[in-house]
Order: sequence, then structure tokens, then C-alpha cells
Amino acid sequence: MVYRRLGNSGLHVSALGLGGWLTFGGQVENDTTLACMKQAYDCGINFFDTAESYAGGQSEIAMGQVIKKLGWKRNDIVISTKLNWGGANGEVLVNNHGLSRKHIIEGLRASLNRLDLEYVDIIYAHRPDRLTPMEEVVRAFNHVIEIKGWAMYWGTSEWSADEIVEACGIAKQLGLVGPVVEQPFYNLLSRKKVEGEFQRLYSRFGLGLTTFSPLKFGLLSGKYNDSPDAPPAGSRFAKGDDKFVNYMRDNYGNKAWQDDIEKVRKLKVVADKVGIPQSELALAWCLKNPNVSSVITGASKPEQVVENVKALQSIDKLTPEIMAEIDAIVGGVELDPARQD
Amino acid sequence: MVYRRLGNSGLHVSALGLGGWLTFGGQVENDTTLACMKQAYDCGINFFDTAESYAGGQSEIAMGQVIKKLGWKRNDIVISTKLNWGGANGEVLVNNHGLSRKHIIEGLRASLNRLDLEYVDIIYAHRPDRLTPMEEVVRAFNHVIEIKGWAMYWGTSEWSADEIVEACGIAKQLGLVGPVVEQPFYNLLSRKKVEGEFQRLYSRFGLGLTTFSPLKFGLLSGKYNDSPDAPPAGSRFAKGDDKFVNYMRDNYGNKAWQDDIEKVRKLKVVADKVGIPQSELALAWCLKNPNVSSVITGASKPEQVVENVKALQSIDKLTPEIMAEIDAIVGGVELDPARQD
Amino acid sequence: MVYRRLGNSGLHVSALGLGGWLTFGGQVENDTTLACMKQAYDCGINFFDTAESYAGGQSEIAMGQVIKKLGWKRNDIVISTKLNWGGANGEVLVNNHGLSRKHIIEGLRASLNRLDLEYVDIIYAHRPDRLTPMEEVVRAFNHVIEIKGWAMYWGTSEWSADEIVEACGIAKQLGLVGPVVEQPFYNLLSRKKVEGEFQRLYSRFGLGLTTFSPLKFGLLSGKYNDSPDAPPAGSRFAKGDDKFVNYMRDNYGNKAWQDDIEKVRKLKVVADKVGIPQSELALAWCLKNPNVSSVITGASKPEQVVENVKALQSIDKLTPEIMAEIDAIVGGVELDPARQD
Amino acid sequence: MVYRRLGNSGLHVSALGLGGWLTFGGQVENDTTLACMKQAYDCGINFFDTAESYAGGQSEIAMGQVIKKLGWKRNDIVISTKLNWGGANGEVLVNNHGLSRKHIIEGLRASLNRLDLEYVDIIYAHRPDRLTPMEEVVRAFNHVIEIKGWAMYWGTSEWSADEIVEACGIAKQLGLVGPVVEQPFYNLLSRKKVEGEFQRLYSRFGLGLTTFSPLKFGLLSGKYNDSPDAPPAGSRFAKGDDKFVNYMRDNYGNKAWQDDIEKVRKLKVVADKVGIPQSELALAWCLKNPNVSSVITGASKPEQVVENVKALQSIDKLTPEIMAEIDAIVGGVELDPARQD
Repeated sequence: MVYRRLGNSGLHVSALGLGGWLTFGGQVENDTTLACMKQAYDCGINFFDTAESYAGGQSEIAMGQVIKKLGWKRNDIVISTKLNWGGANGEVLVNNHGLSRKHIIEGLRASLNRLDLEYVDIIYAHRPDRLTPMEEVVRAFNHVIEIKGWAMYWGTSEWSADEIVEACGIAKQLGLVGPVVEQPFYNLLSRKKVEGEFQRLYSRFGLGLTTFSPLKFGLLSGKYNDSPDAPPAGSRFAKGDDKFVNYMRDNYGNKAWQDDIEKVRKLKVVADKVGIPQSELALAWCLKNPNVSSVITGASKPEQVVENVKALQSIDKLTPEIMAEIDAIVGGVELDPARQD
Repeated sequence: MVYRRLGNSGLHVSALGLGGWLTFGGQVENDTTLACMKQAYDCGINFFDTAESYAGGQSEIAMGQVIKKLGWKRNDIVISTKLNWGGANGEVLVNNHGLSRKHIIEGLRASLNRLDLEYVDIIYAHRPDRLTPMEEVVRAFNHVIEIKGWAMYWGTSEWSADEIVEACGIAKQLGLVGPVVEQPFYNLLSRKKVEGEFQRLYSRFGLGLTTFSPLKFGLLSGKYNDSPDAPPAGSRFAKGDDKFVNYMRDNYGNKAWQDDIEKVRKLKVVADKVGIPQSELALAWCLKNPNVSSVITGASKPEQVVENVKALQSIDKLTPEIMAEIDAIVGGVELDPARQD
Repeated sequence: MVYRRLGNSGLHVSALGLGGWLTFGGQVENDTTLACMKQAYDCGINFFDTAESYAGGQSEIAMGQVIKKLGWKRNDIVISTKLNWGGANGEVLVNNHGLSRKHIIEGLRASLNRLDLEYVDIIYAHRPDRLTPMEEVVRAFNHVIEIKGWAMYWGTSEWSADEIVEACGIAKQLGLVGPVVEQPFYNLLSRKKVEGEFQRLYSRFGLGLTTFSPLKFGLLSGKYNDSPDAPPAGSRFAKGDDKFVNYMRDNYGNKAWQDDIEKVRKLKVVADKVGIPQSELALAWCLKNPNVSSVITGASKPEQVVENVKALQSIDKLTPEIMAEIDAIVGGVELDPARQD
Repeated sequence: MVYRRLGNSGLHVSALGLGGWLTFGGQVENDTTLACMKQAYDCGINFFDTAESYAGGQSEIAMGQVIKKLGWKRNDIVISTKLNWGGANGEVLVNNHGLSRKHIIEGLRASLNRLDLEYVDIIYAHRPDRLTPMEEVVRAFNHVIEIKGWAMYWGTSEWSADEIVEACGIAKQLGLVGPVVEQPFYNLLSRKKVEGEFQRLYSRFGLGLTTFSPLKFGLLSGKYNDSPDAPPAGSRFAKGDDKFVNYMRDNYGNKAWQDDIEKVRKLKVVADKVGIPQSELALAWCLKNPNVSSVITGASKPEQVVENVKALQSIDKLTPEIMAEIDAIVGGVELDPARQD
């Protein structure tokens, strides 16, 4: 396993992380959760990611039980969870979502109860909350870190560049800590935010990235290449009722979807040339980006974890020439010329 | 129920709140307190307000017992209490009132003990304390919020505009949090402070309002319209010995009182035209003000809560024309021409 | 002459000042301006007040010429002018009024040109400007004081208490100087702002006051006592076309006016008892207030100056008993009991 | 003419401004510059915009000469210039561009010499400079404003949202002033930055906008509708050698160009329905955006100025229905759902 610093911070995370979205506490049985997490740990993965809203809080519970059962040392693992964007326990009360001081404090306490941990390593703002003043958000995350001791670091997820910079500026002004990491959607088909909008954030603010959806919900594995119009029976999009899954299914076969599939088919040629599966190409490509601290992967069986980890060996196979071929297929991110100095 | 942000903060409160003044722990039995609070909760009210001085501390005790008994989740309700302006436990020791650091810390701890809660959501300075330096006040409220974790936000009650602005300025200067809400006396017969003196505070300082006495101690319900000289037997003013009640009884029938009754009689015509009871008109009128986060209502029986909540349906009935008629009766608030831009 | 500190500052102003409103450069000839100013100076008055908008800039020009002609030493006099509330030169261009940084810098430069002075001692914001952020206002006044050297101190005129406190707070936060003085309308018939709204500002912020209109446009001299319905021929209200004069004339004889005249008539009895003219009583009463640094008086002939100065001798004649009689007539200012500790 | 505040600042600019790009000191003779500026002034335009790099510094010289010749009062006009992005005088020395402290101070001094003015009202950073630390940039702009008195306000041009927020945050932290205005490219065919990326900046940071290219270099006037493949003889794109003109000519007739022309043709139908020329529709549409302080227009003859000003009358003709039709043609800007609250 390769370990990378979480942005400019002192924390090291495995370059591949394991995420509990959709699966732990939800689509997979608890035994499977245990098997996947154990496999990940045995492969050297130390970073496990969940959220208050994953499977209505069950993901945190399942993950916490596995940690207990396997008797992992607390200092050997990096655990993160996230607040906002769907409440825990399937219920969205007036004040148990968003990023108010009240929810950050109450929500993290509830997450820790579910995880049965004293603290997490990273607490994320799962989505921005435009109604709450940024100063309130920054202060509340500092409170749970500095006074309560419930987290080591805080980060953001799916925030805009200017929101992250605002949070960093306010933290600086108030002598507090800003977010050290952002968790964006990032893959071969969705590069713009990470490589374009965020371009200044890495060196100027020391921002780290823990990216999710490296396969864009499976698209980049190539498994939908031959069923362009409707999800194949048994696939995640066929049965799920998660809001993201529903969104994907509803858009299955539309114009944007077909444009994506077109690119994925072309990427197959590149993957074959490199001599690796498509999904490995997609993962390795994410890992190639030096601003990425960890690529969060999902797994519904232990073998998938092993497959995912292979991508680490393929990073070097992505030579400048191969990267150029990939850019030609998926489109590179043009940087504003006014700033390319 | 409608929920509004508490000023510019991230906290959401129900547009109608339930207050424990005079009643809970005092004029009404504990069973009634429970019945009223349950009814309020069932109507969607999430904001419950009390104070260390209400019924000499008994209001906090009664409210805390109901919360326990009904098994409410802490993240589902917003609880506020207040310090200063009459001590708790019926005793006013040298240092157990005012806004000294000593009383803010000791007083809030005692309130939490009575409420049997770990923290309140909002802690108010019940009245200003002109003898204590504002910096001491601001620092002490920040201490109980940031270090002790005994409150989420702090506010003021019956402060002047310049006092609120001073507190905000000192907080800014010291990198601390200022008050996010003021709790003023506000109703159809007392508009000047909220609409005049405070006019700049909403947009410049993001101040929220939780207002009290929407019926001006019952006057605006019209129930004193026919007994202009002495309180009707059985009314609150006939029997109470609270200082406010005494004040009202002592002024019953004087010039200011009769001027008010005159207006209330005229408002009856408007209420009849709109087709709602006078008290509903009075409540809806307060709710119509977009700077009001929550109108705190009292109730000595559950049916009153249900009555009060009806006002939410009547907000839209207060058309610009009706509002103009009301202004003609009670008098609009003239804004200083130098600032009417 | 008595000299008082300008609030908490180190500057001393004569307890009576001479103002150039309506008269200098306008209603009176330049010779008269010179005569009045000379008389004032000879009486020990060192504080001369004008504004960019008085007589469309002519007041500043006239005052500057007199200073030159009489060869006064710069360090022997205190000169103030004001920006905003009507442009200079009779014209109101888009940006040559208000309190934008542009107008504060350009406007003060133009005032200094008209006054033919290198600097004024006090530059006032003649009225608040709600459209310009307070931080911009505070910074611009500091710029003309600290960097340009065009003024020694800055003040406000007819601002609300919370606006003054906001300016002081921002100045503190930014390490800049706040306003040291407010110039309000203050007289026996208009006490509320100075004694009520401003009550906390004197000790907490060291605010000084230079008050204007001690006779409420002549009303308190008693000269309108016998012509309640229309201004006597030849009086200022009969002929003027200044906006304030027009306002007064338009309200001549209305309800508020007659209420005032009623009080003035009763005050005559008090003045007679004390044995001084009504106008002297009115002036002395203003001077009696220890928070008043200087009472700005007008004069359209030198003798008036001499009359005005006599009031200094009458301050001590206003015994507690006389002051109580006056309160009984004009109404005292009730302080909020919650803050009378 | 309509005047709007420059963002949250106290400065007022005419809703239409006149820019000196390409024309003044360059493509048009000096007599024409004078005629255009006079016409603009007579129409009530008070905002005149130039840059050190326009026509290699000749634009500033020409504009300065006109101001002198027409004898405009300094407080009656708002003059802006810009630093960085191409040096003045046709030469790009190592240090006479960029946003180093050295160039901001030396460059602005040189601009003032060319303009023959003591100060400008707004100094813009014409483009970001990614090599210079933001703190150096913020400090240098504050130096020329606060210490040198060479400008009243500073702004940015074509910066990203996160760069603007970083500058604001650093200014706040250091007690300095941040940028009050951004000058972006904005028109019916290029909405994304102003309406999407910048969406949070208006209310959170009080940012104003002075937009350029309301007709996208003439495209939106419809004059290229009938010559899709090559610029019509005599048009700006046929003869110019400015870098922007070259860029446009090189892309004439390509895919993006033709997509634009397609939309412009459809917009003609809307313009006809409203009963105004296409260019007037394009201008009025920019003016309709309440976050736009001023739309900078170009003119190579006085009649064009008169034409442009007509757009002010057409703002109200853009009813919600018409705006919806326009959106359907050019595409609305989707706001990130996570932030649409």
C-alpha cells in the first residue's frame, strides 16, 4: 500500500480508501461488511469513510461493530464520517441536518454513538449549507475538534472553490483551523471541478482530496457498454432506491449517458493496450493525480477490494503518452490562459 | 407549522413558540404544563422558552420534567432560558442576578440543573446590565458557549439598539460571537422599538427576533373592551401578584390604558372584516413581519395552543389594504427621513 | 468664557459656539458676518461651525474670509465643517454628497478650498448615509485625518445611537479613531434623543456633544407666543426659503406647534421668576447638561452674540427646584428602569 | 440616466459606462474620442473606463486630454483604469506587468501621468497574477489607496470566484480593504461565470460588477448573422490586430462561433417581438441583472452612445415571459442543487 499525506496536514491515509456508501449497513449483510473491511485492512488500507446519512445511520453502526470485532487499534486506522445532506435514522427533523452549530455538535455526537468511537479522524461537511453563515460553520467544526475532542481534522464534500476559500479565510482571520480536505466526485468522466475550479487550492491552501466515485457508479468498469438503453438486470441501477441510484437510473440511456458510454468504449482500447481491466485503468488514473490523497472505493465483496488495490501497481503504466491518449478521449481540462503563467 | 431561521444563524425555530412565563410552574398545574407542551409539540412547535426568574425557577423545573416525561429527542427541540432580571428561587442575592461573569456561569449552570438538560440552545440576557462592562458580558456568554458547551447561541432581551450593536462590535473585535437574537416586547400597540429603533439591525447585524406579548397581556384579545375601569373578576390582572401583572393592574383604566382600549375596539372592526378573532389578528400581524423569527405565545390550556396556531393560516389574509387599515388605527412607525433611502 | 473638553478628547471648545447656518454667506451681509465673528471672538468664543451645504458653500467662504481678515492665529480657534446632506455650490451631483470615500475626500478638499484653510479641527458627517457601509465611512474619515492631515477629529450629526456605536466599534476593531462628538438638535422642547437614546454614549464612548438649535428656530425666545397661527411679518419663517425654514413655516400653527407654544408660554413664568429673558433660560438650560461640550448659537448681529454669552452667568440660577419646574412643563425624559442601576 | 451603487460601496456609477478599449487612442481619432465622451457625458454617463494596456497606453492619454479639454469637474466623474495583462507603451518589461507591489505602484503612477489626473476612482487588477502571493497584491492596492491617495477603490477583472474570495479574506484578516468590484466578460452568450460561479459573491461579499462586451464583440448586434464563414469586409474582425480581435477572427466560422450565431438568429425573433434592435435587447438584458452596477459599452461614434443609452428604456420590456424565452434560446444557468436553498 502507498500512504499519502492528507493535503498539507500531518495525517497519512492509504492511497485507496474504503467507503461505506450504499453498501455497509445497507445493500450488503453485516458479515460481508466485516469481510470487506478485513480484506481492506489486510491489504494495507487504513482509511475508512462513512456518513451519518449512509443507509440512514446503519453504515456507521456496521462499521463501528466491525472495528470493535476485529479489535483494530485506534491509532492504526483513519475513520471519517460526514454531516448534513440527509439526516441520520432516515428522518430529517428541522434542525438535524444542515451545518448549524446545533447540528454539527448534536450530529457528530450521534455519529460517534453509532460508531461507538470516542472520536473520528476527519469530520466532513457532506454538502455546503448556504443558509448558515460560514463563520458559524467554521466555529462549530473547531469546537468539536478543539474543545470536545470529537475529531482530529475537518473537511468539506462537494463544496465550490470559493466556499472552501471562504472557510479557510475565516479560519485564518479567527485563528482557527480551516478544512484540510475536500471530498469531490472525481473520475475520468468528471474532471472539471478537481482539475479546473480547484486548481489554485492545492498549493495555496494545502488542500487534500479524498475522491469518490472513481468508476462513476460503475460506468467506467465498462459493464454498461453493451446495454446502452436500460440497466442490465441485477445491476445496482436496476434495483436500488437510493436517491443517487434513482437519479442514475432515471438518466440511463439519455444523451449525457450515451456520450459517457461512447467515451468508455474508447477507453477500453486504451485499457487493452495497457493490458489492464477498464476499472483498473480508471482507478489508476485517479491515483495518478498528485493532488489526490486517497481514492475512496466501494466493495460489496472482499475480492473487489483486492481488485481495486491492484490499481496501485498500474499508476506507472500510465505514461505521458497514455495520458495524452486518455485526454484525447475524455477531454482535457483547459486552464484559463490568463492564469497559466 | 412554519419554521424560520433565527436571524442570520443556522438554527430553525417554529414561527410560533411556547413560553413558560407566568404559567408553567406557577399559575398552572404541572399536568396542564404537560398538556400544553404536548399540544404545542403535536402542532409542530419546536421552540420552548423559559427563564431563571419565571415562577422563581419553577418554570424551568416544570419544563424540564415535561421534556423528560414525553421523551423528546434533544435534537428535535429548541430550548431557551434567560439570565438576569429577578433571581431564581425567589431570592435575589447580591451576585445571583445581573450579567457578571460570575452570574452568567453560575446562573446558567443552575438553570441547566433545574431543566435537567446538558445545554440550552439559546441563552438570553433577560435585561441589560448597565453596571457590568459589555466586554465582560460578551466574554462570559462566549465562555459558556465555547468552553462549557452549555448553550449553542446567545441573545438579548429588551436591550436598546446601541447596546446590541456594542455587544456585536466587541464580539467582532475580540474574535468572539455576538448575540444572534433579541427578544423584545412587540405587538400591535407597541411597534416603535422593533420597527423604528431596531430598523438597521436586521440587515447590518443579521439579528433575529423572538417576540413576546403578542396580545399585550391579553388586551389585544378584546376581552377588556367592555370593562374599561377595573379588571373583570377572575382575570389575570384581578388576582396575580407578579410584578408585571401588578404594574398592569395599577395602570388599569388610566389614560394610556384607555387609549389602547380605544384602538383595540377599532381593531375589532378589522378583525370582523377579515373574519377572524381579534387575538388571531394580533398574532398574524406579528408573524407578518419578516424580521420576526418566532412569536412566543403563552397558554394555560391546550386549546389555546391550537387557537394560536391558527394564526399561521391568517398571515396571508393580512393584505396590503388590511395592513394599511391597521396602520391607520394603531399608527405606523415613521422612519427618520435622513435614513429612508 | 467657559471652555469644555470635546467629549473625552483633548480638544477644548468654548461652551458657546457660533454657527454659520442660514446666516453667514446667506441671509446676512459679509460685513455682518465679520462683525458677529469678531464679537464672538472678543467674548472668548473659540468654536466656529459651518458646513459644505450652508448657503451652498458661501458660509464656508464667508467664514474663511473673516478668519483671514481678522488675522486670527490658527491655534487659537476651533473650526468645524460638515459633509453630506445637500451638496455644496447648490448642486447635488451623483457622487458629491453622501458619505462615500470619494465624497469624504473630495468634499473635504473642496471645503478647505472654500475656507482657505489647510485643515479643520472637526469634520462632521452631517447626516448618516445608510447606503454606504459604515466601514467605508470610518476608513475615509481616518484617511483625511491621518494621511491627508485635513482634520484633527471627526464627528457625526443627527445620527442614531446605534449608528454612532457601530462606528465606534468598527474603529476599535480596525485600530482607527471613531467619532468623538455628535451634533444633535437639542433644546427644551426636544430632549429625548440627547437624554434618552444617547444616555449610554457619554460614559461608555466618551462622546461629546455640540448641540444646535437651542431656541428651536426661535420658538423658545417667546417671540411667536402671541402669533400662534401665522408667522409674524418680518420673521425668519415669513420670508426664508431654506428647506428647514420652509418646513417650520409649513407647520406653523399646527397641533405640534401649538403644543410647543403652550409650553413656551409656561416657561415664561419660570424665566420671569429667575429674572432672565426666555432665550437666556433656554440657552442656560442646554449648558446645564454636563454632557454638552458646546451649544452652537446663531447670530445675525453682534449684539445677539453678547446676549447669548450672558447665559453662561445664568447656569447656576437653574437650581434643582427650577429644573424640576421646567421638567414639569416640558416633560422629563424617563430612563428605562431596567437600566437605571 | 440611472445610477447604481458599485456593489456594496458608497460610489455611484451610471448603469451604462463608456470604455476606451480598442477605440480611444487606437482605432478612432482623438476628435472622435472627444465627441464620444462628450455625448456620453451629455447623456448622463459618469463612468469612464480604460486600462494601461489599451492601445499601449494611448487610451489613457486620449481620455485624459478629453477630460481636460471639456473641463469636467473631478467629483462629477468616475474614472477607472487597470493594471496587468499587457504592458503600457507597447513594451512588456520584466516587471512592468503582473501584480507585484513594484508594478502596482509604478504602473498606477504611470497611468496617472498618462491620464494627467491625481487619482482614479477605481483601480482594477486587469487579470489575476498567479505568481504573486495574494497578500502582496492586497497590500499593494491598499498602499496606493490609503497611503498614496491614488485611487478610491480597487477591483478585479476576469478573476475566478475563489481568487476574489481569497483577496477578501486576506483583506479582512489584515484589517485592509478588499476588492469592491469585478469586471467580467458578460453577455447573453456568456452567462456562466457571472450567474453561476459568482452566485455567492454578491450577497456574501457585497461584490459589484462592471461588465464588458455586452454584445460579445458585436455578435449580438446580429451583424454577422448573414456571413457565417468569414468576417464581412470592413468589419472589426477583418482588419484589427489586437490580440482579442485576432482570436475572434481565427475562430470565425468554427463550431462554437456557429452555435453562437444560431442563438443570435433566434434572439432576433425575440427582439422583433419586443420591438427593439438586437443590440438594444442584448444591452437591456445585461442591465436587467440587479448584480450589475454598470455595463461598459464601446463607441466609435457619438451616435452609438445615443443608441446604447436607449437600452435603459427597454429594461422593463423584458418581462418574465420574455426572459423565459431568452433562457430557452441561450440556456439558463443551472445553480448547484446543493446550494439552491
